[in-house]
Amino acid sequence: MALIVHKYGGTSMGSTERIRSVAQRVAKWVHAGHQMVVVPSAMSGETNRLLGLAKELMPNATTPEAMRELDAIAATGEQVSVGLLALALQAQGVSAVSYGGWQVPLETDSAFTKARITRIDDRRVRADLAAGRVVIITGFQGIDAEGNVTTLGRGGSDTSAVAVAAALKAAECLIYTDVDGVYTTDPRIVPEARRLSTISFEEMLEMASLGSKVLQIRSVEFAGKYRVPTRVLSSFTPHDIPIDEEAVSGTLITFEEDEKMEQAVVAGIAFNRDEAKISVIGVPDRPGIAYALLGPVAEANIDVDVIIQNVSHDGRTDFSFTVHRNDYARTMELLKAKILPAVGAADVRGDARICKVSIVGIGMKSHVGVAARMFQTLSSEGINIQMITTSEIKTSVVLDEKYMELAVRALHKAFGLEEPKAAG
Amino acid sequence: MALIVHKYGGTSMGSTERIRSVAQRVAKWVHAGHQMVVVPSAMSGETNRLLGLAKELMPNATTPEAMRELDAIAATGEQVSVGLLALALQAQGVSAVSYGGWQVPLETDSAFTKARITRIDDRRVRADLAAGRVVIITGFQGIDAEGNVTTLGRGGSDTSAVAVAAALKAAECLIYTDVDGVYTTDPRIVPEARRLSTISFEEMLEMASLGSKVLQIRSVEFAGKYRVPTRVLSSFTPHDIPIDEEAVSGTLITFEEDEKMEQAVVAGIAFNRDEAKISVIGVPDRPGIAYALLGPVAEANIDVDVIIQNVSHDGRTDFSFTVHRNDYARTMELLKAKILPAVGAADVRGDARICKVSIVGIGMKSHVGVAARMFQTLSSEGINIQMITTSEIKTSVVLDEKYMELAVRALHKAFGLEEPKAAG
Repeated sequence: MALIVHKYGGTSMGSTERIRSVAQRVAKWVHAGHQMVVVPSAMSGETNRLLGLAKELMPNATTPEAMRELDAIAATGEQVSVGLLALALQAQGVSAVSYGGWQVPLETDSAFTKARITRIDDRRVRADLAAGRVVIITGFQGIDAEGNVTTLGRGGSDTSAVAVAAALKAAECLIYTDVDGVYTTDPRIVPEARRLSTISFEEMLEMASLGSKVLQIRSVEFAGKYRVPTRVLSSFTPHDIPIDEEAVSGTLITFEEDEKMEQAVVAGIAFNRDEAKISVIGVPDRPGIAYALLGPVAEANIDVDVIIQNVSHDGRTDFSFTVHRNDYARTMELLKAKILPAVGAADVRGDARICKVSIVGIGMKSHVGVAARMFQTLSSEGINIQMITTSEIKTSVVLDEKYMELAVRALHKAFGLEEPKAAG
Repeated sequence: MALIVHKYGGTSMGSTERIRSVAQRVAKWVHAGHQMVVVPSAMSGETNRLLGLAKELMPNATTPEAMRELDAIAATGEQVSVGLLALALQAQGVSAVSYGGWQVPLETDSAFTKARITRIDDRRVRADLAAGRVVIITGFQGIDAEGNVTTLGRGGSDTSAVAVAAALKAAECLIYTDVDGVYTTDPRIVPEARRLSTISFEEMLEMASLGSKVLQIRSVEFAGKYRVPTRVLSSFTPHDIPIDEEAVSGTLITFEEDEKMEQAVVAGIAFNRDEAKISVIGVPDRPGIAYALLGPVAEANIDVDVIIQNVSHDGRTDFSFTVHRNDYARTMELLKAKILPAVGAADVRGDARICKVSIVGIGMKSHVGVAARMFQTLSSEGINIQMITTSEIKTSVVLDEKYMELAVRALHKAFGLEEPKAAG
C-alpha cells in the first residue's frame, strides 16, 4: 500500500461521462490497496468561460482588488470538478471527500492570479486517508494569510498536485495528460522519436521550458525541490488496463544521479519557433548598458529569453536577444522610439523568422565535445548558426526557421536517440 | 448615513448586462452616503445547471457525504456572482470586495442542503465598511463547525440577506424581487388588488406560507426574530430613479404593534390550489389515533397541511387533512394498503379538486366577527365550505376549487381591500 497522488487535466474532466471514467481509474487504484489523493483541473472550457464573464464587466483587471475577484471567480471551476468527482466515486461505492484549497488549507502568498504555495497543512487530508477516504483537492488555487482565495496561474493544477504529493510525502505523483510521456523530440517532426521511460529532473526542466509543453515548469521545479517522484502518463489509455501496466507507463522524472550513469549523453532535442531575434548594433560598451537596453523592455512586460553580448571592438559592441514573436513588433517600436536614442546605439535589426533548437542532457556535464558534435552536424547539413548559448545541461542555437525540421531530425539521429537506451 | 443590505435574485444577476445594472443601483446608494452590503443569488439557471451535472453522476444523493458534495458544488454559483458584482462596482469606480459564506464566516449547522444559520461574525465586514468598501456576500450558503460548505436550501439567499442585516444591525434590508411588493391578493385574480405599503411580520408569515411566494418563509421568520426592517421591492424599476422614491417603494415588513392600530382588520386574502383533501371516515375515537393515521404519512416524507378532527359520535369520528396535490395518489395508496387496516376505519375518501382560501390580518386578534363575516360572504355567493381552520391572525376554508376566484374576489371586496388604507 502506498500513498499516491493523481492529477487530471481539464480534458479528462470535460464531461460527466469523462469524470465517471476518471473515477473508475481512481477506484482501480483504491482497490489495489493504495491511499489516493486526486487533484483535478476545472472542466475544459470552464476557466475561460468564467474569466470571459469577468472580462465583460472589467476588460482590464489590473488592480489588486480586481485581481482578487478574478481569482475568486476562476477558482470556482475546480470547486465544481472536485465535487463532481467525489460524487462519481461515491456512486461507485468508493468513499470520497472534496476540498477547496482553502479547506486543506493550501497556503499561498497574496500574488493574485500567480500566487506561490507557501505551506500545505496535511492534517485534515491524512485523517481522511486514515479513515479510508479518497481525498480530492482543487488544483490551481489556495488561500493567502488574509483568507483570500488565490490562484497559481494557468497550468497551476500540475503544481498543486506535485506540492500536495510533496507535503504528504507521496510515493508517486501521476500526472495524467494528453500525451503519453516525454519524448526525445516531437514525433510530429521526427517519427522515430522515442518515449523516455525516465528523465532527470534537470533535463525535464530544460525540455519543459524549451517548449515541450508537457508539464507546467513550476511543477517541475517543485518536484525537483522536494524530490517528488513524478510520472507523466496518458489519460487516454482505457481506465481498465491492468494497474501494473499503468503504473510503469509514461515517463518518470527522477532525482537519482546514479540512474543516469547508463543513459545517453543527450536525452532529447527541444525546439521552438515562437521567438523573434533582435540585435542592437554598435552599442557603446559601458557599464549599465544591458540594463539600459532591457530594463524598459521588462517594464513593458515583455519576456526576454536568450540574451547574448559578445566582446567589443573599438568601444562598441552588438547586443542580441530574443522575445516571443507576439511581442516582436512592440519591442522593435519601443527600441526605436525610446531606447536607442537614450542609449546612443547605431542601429537595431530584427528577424521574426527564426527558430531555437536545443540539445538537452544531464550527461553533457561530464562529456566533452557534445556541443562540438551539434555544430558539426548542423554544418554538414549546410545550416548556418545565428546565435549560440549554453548551460550545464543544454546547448541552444538560433537558426533560420526554415531549417528547424531538418536540424531537429539531423540532431536526433546524430545523438542516437532512435536507438533504445541501455536498460534501466 | 445608514447601513443598508440589498438582496438581488437570480433574474437580476442573470447576465453581465444585468449585473452592471445592479452595480449602478448599488452605486446610487453608495453615492447617497450609505454603507452597503449586498447579497446576490447565483445567475439564473446556474444552480440548476450545477445540480444537473451532479445528478448525472449520482441520481439520488441522499447520504451525508453526497449531500456535502452537492452543497460544495451548488455554492459555486453564488461565488461567481459575488465576484462579478464586485468587478462591476469596481469598474464604476466603487471600491468593493466579495466574500463566500465561509470567509465572513457565516456559520451554520451541518444539515447539508438545508442548513440553518447559527452565527455570523461581523468583524471582517465591519472593517471593510469602515474602509469605505461595498461588501458583497454570497447568499444561500455558509460553513459548518467542521469547515464544510453548507447551503440553506432553495430561496436561502433571502434568509442570508436578512440574517446578515440582523448581525450588522442594518437600518433596513431591501429584497429586490420580480414583484413590486406584497398585495392584498393576487392581482391576476382580483385586478383591484392593492399593494400594501406596510405589512406586519405575522401577516407576512401567513401570506408567505399560504402561497404568496414573495419571500422565503424562513427569511420572514428571521426578520421577525431579530426585528429586521425588511422591504420587498421591484428589481424592474430603472436603477436611476431617485433614491428617495426607491427607498419608500415596495412593502415594508414591520414589527411595531402601534403602527397596526389604524390599519384594516384583514390585510389580505391568500389562496392555494395545490392541495388535496383526504377524509378517513368512522375512525375509532381512542387515544393515539391521530398519530396512528399521520405518523406513517410523515414517515413517507409527505407534508400535511390542514388537519381537522371533529367531535365523535358513538365512539367513532371522521378525521380529515390536506396534502400537496402531487402527494395525493401516494397518500391514498398508503392509507388503503397499510394504515386503514391497522386503524380499523370504515372508509377513506379523497378529493384533489379543492382549494384553500384564507383571510389574514393581525387585526383579527382584537376584532370579533371577522370569521363570521367571511362565512356570510361565502354563503351569499352560494359557496359551500368543506373545512374550516383558524389561528389568531388567519381563518382558512377549504372549498371546491371551481369557486376559488369567486371566493377570493368576494372576500377582497367584503373586507374593503380595494379602498386605500388610512394613511401611515
